[in-house]
Amino acid sequence: MNTLLGMKTETGAWLSGELDSVGSLLEHHLESKHDAVNDVCQYLAGYRGKMLRPSLVLLSWGSVRGSVVVPEEVHRAAGVVELIHLATLVHDDVLDEADIRRGGQTINSLWGNEGAVILGDYLLSSAFHLCSTIRNLDLNILLGEVTNTLCSGELVQLYHRNDVGLGLSDYYQIIHDKTASLISAACKIGGVLGGADEKTVLDLGFFGESIGTAFQIRDDLIDVLSDARSAGKPTGKDVAKGKMTLPAILMLENNPGCLPKLQEALENDDLSSLKNMLVESGSVSQAEGVICGLVDKAVDSIGPLRNTSCGDMLVRLAEQLSKPV
Amino acid sequence: MNTLLGMKTETGAWLSGELDSVGSLLEHHLESKHDAVNDVCQYLAGYRGKMLRPSLVLLSWGSVRGSVVVPEEVHRAAGVVELIHLATLVHDDVLDEADIRRGGQTINSLWGNEGAVILGDYLLSSAFHLCSTIRNLDLNILLGEVTNTLCSGELVQLYHRNDVGLGLSDYYQIIHDKTASLISAACKIGGVLGGADEKTVLDLGFFGESIGTAFQIRDDLIDVLSDARSAGKPTGKDVAKGKMTLPAILMLENNPGCLPKLQEALENDDLSSLKNMLVESGSVSQAEGVICGLVDKAVDSIGPLRNTSCGDMLVRLAEQLSKPV
Repeated sequence: MNTLLGMKTETGAWLSGELDSVGSLLEHHLESKHDAVNDVCQYLAGYRGKMLRPSLVLLSWGSVRGSVVVPEEVHRAAGVVELIHLATLVHDDVLDEADIRRGGQTINSLWGNEGAVILGDYLLSSAFHLCSTIRNLDLNILLGEVTNTLCSGELVQLYHRNDVGLGLSDYYQIIHDKTASLISAACKIGGVLGGADEKTVLDLGFFGESIGTAFQIRDDLIDVLSDARSAGKPTGKDVAKGKMTLPAILMLENNPGCLPKLQEALENDDLSSLKNMLVESGSVSQAEGVICGLVDKAVDSIGPLRNTSCGDMLVRLAEQLSKPV
Repeated sequence: MNTLLGMKTETGAWLSGELDSVGSLLEHHLESKHDAVNDVCQYLAGYRGKMLRPSLVLLSWGSVRGSVVVPEEVHRAAGVVELIHLATLVHDDVLDEADIRRGGQTINSLWGNEGAVILGDYLLSSAFHLCSTIRNLDLNILLGEVTNTLCSGELVQLYHRNDVGLGLSDYYQIIHDKTASLISAACKIGGVLGGADEKTVLDLGFFGESIGTAFQIRDDLIDVLSDARSAGKPTGKDVAKGKMTLPAILMLENNPGCLPKLQEALENDDLSSLKNMLVESGSVSQAEGVICGLVDKAVDSIGPLRNTSCGDMLVRLAEQLSKPV
């Protein structure tokens, strides 16, 4: 995201510095008196990505507050959402039996599933502990609701594995729950800590929900359209795991006759046929159109906040999602 | 525990009724709008055991309060510790690749590791959410500390797998962290919600820590001494997983020359030789002596609370642990 957002601007440099503070806070928070815990936490460095969620906490806070001096509770809150995200990555890699993440080896491949399951639990637990130290009960309740939602999304997705009959509304529910809910919460938390009124908090939440949904659809498109090298991670995972994604659902809605061909490609993990089918049917373009619509709605929703330097970065961040995969 | 504690007494009947309320509260709390979540949660019924931890919350509360009308926040707190415990059972079964728990099939054997990992996360998340609804931030912080400690204990234990050089102090640290800390927290939480003074809360915490340690040592003894039928679960797991337990550590401390024979038994998963060695060396009796010492310390620690009907049940519960395996 550093390059995406143009960290060379003044706000970009500010965000970059604040993210460093969040990173240091997390390192300190996870530090243990036990070597075993510190050893396994070291591997987390490879899991750090663009820190999208902490960025959203900081930018949402900044768009409301307009100030540059960030109180420590905002760093903590930003750390909390990153810890939750890291926990889901570590457990997802167990679920996906993944060996590679961001070009490096996954925790499960290095420490076995056992280490990865316990580390994910430790991250979840640390997130709730850190959140409690902010001493704002509403944040704890919001966090508990969001993590319940994340887990529900994962369970429902698992339930629908290999279900080619998955409809649009179930699909949207799943990606809302497993992805958009945490991104939305990040924006809301920034607003709450910035002292925003109720409507502004809701607007920020809507912004997060829209870009979170767009983000997941884009991620699904990358999984089917990109090669592993340009994606920086193995692709074709969704097909291998029997997950229906938006372009496939749209293709079936437009032309139910495609079902046997789609089933054949899915059953044989035939990524190349699937990709051709989805592109040629126009459903990839249609999914890209859905992303653009979501981004437009997101940008509209935050109204006057757009005129602040942090709000402007939120807009640019959203607009990055509209670029072709 | 129902029979252990003699539910026919008045306090026994009271506890039994309160545990039913906690059970109903949990069922209600875990209820979801998603069939997938409700389906997988159904299997949890088989995981419900003696509800030791909720019992400790209730009895500690009752020993301080002396009242019989339990406020809902105490039921919630009792539910919180049970949810954490259930989460650890579900994830432990993934770690242990266990198929059977309390005579029934485990979640991982029915739903695969994926379902079990996510369900464990959902239980953890639900515990923190439920705890937040009590609206007492100190409880949230205590809970976060305890779950961090639980995970550390599991990670340190994993780190020492197949380490026959594991010393007594590391062993005690591990069982404190992975088992005694939550049992201790259950007693403390009961005290805090009962309005106990700081010293009494610490005493209850010490009681829990002592019986929790005794409980884990007893569990380790059952694993090596009992057959699966009388234990109600597969035994010999500790040997299979390369976990050093108290009698083995004591045997080596008393007679380091046993090491090659012990290593041979561990490497070959030879449970029968191990059992004979530990019994004949006297280290099983020595471990049973440690349990009795812990139980005595536990009973002493709660002083005047013993004179209440709930305190008396705490004492009887502790004393059950001294019985030969």
